Amino acid sequence: MDAVKQSLLFVIGVSVDKTKTSIQPVEWRDGRLCLLDQRRLPAETVWLTFDDANTVAHAIHDMVVRGAPAIGITAAYAVVLAARHAWNIAGVNWKQAMTAPIARLEASRPTAVNLKWALDKMSDLYLALPDEQAPEQQLLELAVQIHQSDIEANHQMGRLGAELIETGSQVMTHCNAGALATGGFGTALGVIRQGVAEGRIEHVHVNETRPWLQGARLTAWELLNENIACSLNADVAAASLMASGRISWIIVGADRIAANGDVANKIGTYGLAILAKYHRIGFMVVAPTSTIDWQLSDGDLIPIEQRSPAEVTQLAEKQIAPEGIDAVNPAFDITPASLIDVIVTEAGVVRQPTVETMKALQNGRNM
Amino acid sequence: MDAVKQSLLFVIGVSVDKTKTSIQPVEWRDGRLCLLDQRRLPAETVWLTFDDANTVAHAIHDMVVRGAPAIGITAAYAVVLAARHAWNIAGVNWKQAMTAPIARLEASRPTAVNLKWALDKMSDLYLALPDEQAPEQQLLELAVQIHQSDIEANHQMGRLGAELIETGSQVMTHCNAGALATGGFGTALGVIRQGVAEGRIEHVHVNETRPWLQGARLTAWELLNENIACSLNADVAAASLMASGRISWIIVGADRIAANGDVANKIGTYGLAILAKYHRIGFMVVAPTSTIDWQLSDGDLIPIEQRSPAEVTQLAEKQIAPEGIDAVNPAFDITPASLIDVIVTEAGVVRQPTVETMKALQNGRNM
Repeated sequence: MDAVKQSLLFVIGVSVDKTKTSIQPVEWRDGRLCLLDQRRLPAETVWLTFDDANTVAHAIHDMVVRGAPAIGITAAYAVVLAARHAWNIAGVNWKQAMTAPIARLEASRPTAVNLKWALDKMSDLYLALPDEQAPEQQLLELAVQIHQSDIEANHQMGRLGAELIETGSQVMTHCNAGALATGGFGTALGVIRQGVAEGRIEHVHVNETRPWLQGARLTAWELLNENIACSLNADVAAASLMASGRISWIIVGADRIAANGDVANKIGTYGLAILAKYHRIGFMVVAPTSTIDWQLSDGDLIPIEQRSPAEVTQLAEKQIAPEGIDAVNPAFDITPASLIDVIVTEAGVVRQPTVETMKALQNGRNM
Repeated sequence: MDAVKQSLLFVIGVSVDKTKTSIQPVEWRDGRLCLLDQRRLPAETVWLTFDDANTVAHAIHDMVVRGAPAIGITAAYAVVLAARHAWNIAGVNWKQAMTAPIARLEASRPTAVNLKWALDKMSDLYLALPDEQAPEQQLLELAVQIHQSDIEANHQMGRLGAELIETGSQVMTHCNAGALATGGFGTALGVIRQGVAEGRIEHVHVNETRPWLQGARLTAWELLNENIACSLNADVAAASLMASGRISWIIVGADRIAANGDVANKIGTYGLAILAKYHRIGFMVVAPTSTIDWQLSDGDLIPIEQRSPAEVTQLAEKQIAPEGIDAVNPAFDITPASLIDVIVTEAGVVRQPTVETMKALQNGRNM
């Protein structure tokens, strides 16, 4: 397929609907994958362009793109790039040439299960394709569908989650589970956007979310761009803000949810859930069903990524701690289902998640 | 009194004993007050010299020196500077000239009660002095005594607190309640130093303590200087570290303790106390009796300093959050006595602090 024809097909057939959301961190443009470099926000808005799957794996590891759903979508598009390259170098043997780049993508980050979920979907398709035909277009159509479905799921979760929030509420969120973490609109921030639009939410407290400052850099940026009333706070101020009695819900995303409702999410989530329980504040997890790992019986089995100590000892490349200090830097923690009031998915809402209530969600969707 | 004689008196009579501790953030040298600039640690070790009380008030506000006991000691020395100046400009009317600088010192930071405690002690003395005599030397002797007593109190608290810790323990601390926050040796870090020396503590987890990073910058520096086994973590990692089951005690200082045992301390302390209770980990507050405000019935009456939003939105003068974002920045929070297992003072240990157990401490010392 020549480039012009491919580009035309893209334009007429497989573009993601952008009418529903303003910010999208992942885009497919003219046969290449474009990522908004989230390491440089909010100071700079820089897009990076990729035509090689291995480079995308590096970008995921380096957090050019982050957020479980956005990582899944990125990986799906990276498979398209891998397939193009495999066809170009190996012809009818292209499927063999897919193994290494897919393995690299899968290893790029360990905790978010959406990555594996998207790679599995893409792999199921490419393995069923004929050897003798260029696979790119069909894989691109699936990647776009994964992307589009994620945005639609976010809007559905937004509606379902917002319904639970009373008019005039203040909420708190952690990390960034917004448009930047997804195909667009966001999971936790999708609920918040919808809640603001419906007049249910009047103020958003944003935890800065050390060490990577996703709250200060990304969530604050998204909310400020849309003139949503919000204030930033150091993570350590969360407890006293809860004690003030003004906050009704803590709303967060998830990187992986076990079959019993245990949730892996950004480091700090577990502590917030304990603090919410102590203060009798609702704790809501918002994530698409692609985040649920039905193979894992509980959260203890979820691998927790340990990231570089430098993320703690340095900030903006400046050393903030004494040279030579040891630092631990787990990127995620596990919140047991017993601390969660509700998990909101596009397939429905699970109150008081347990093996049984999660199973009901699974059966309702025949997943 | 001429400078030489004064200096000699200082050398022979009123110098603080430095044999017991290596780091001291406050020193009286050759008739001037010297402060180790804690804003610049650990990158640089810079001492600032003061001979004017009003400038010292600014330095306290700007956190050149911080930590409740160190602020109290600094204020005591500043009164000496104020008295010298008052005598020089007003002669026998020097007491009148003391009012303004003392008021400025008292207003420099609102939460730590040691500031007022030290100023009250110094005021009681200067008001009793004759009008016709230069007051500097007698005030200096009291300031040195306040400083020396604080160091001795720290060592006593170190012994009393360490006794409660089983051999082979790991502990966590927040902010800096070390030598840098006191006359020397430290309150919470005094217990930790003593616990390490006695083989009770084998590892110290240091919360970085946003926004000012006292943990990452100051506590890590103190521990590293003494080769005490430690690791730094983002504040948000505290809960999952507690869940690991390795931590026996959370050990913190205090900025003010109410008569019922409620504790004002660095923002984040309250959340740590809730997390400790949830994980059945001991929660120890270490503070000299000068930190107890017997006039206040409970913690709700303690004024909480709100500091500049820039401490949250910027780091090392670099903007980390989007321009225009609102930020809240309470410097302290209140931990209710019910969440505290033990308060360690130099006058004794209060287990399960209540109005009654606190009163017993007070009566034991006839304070």
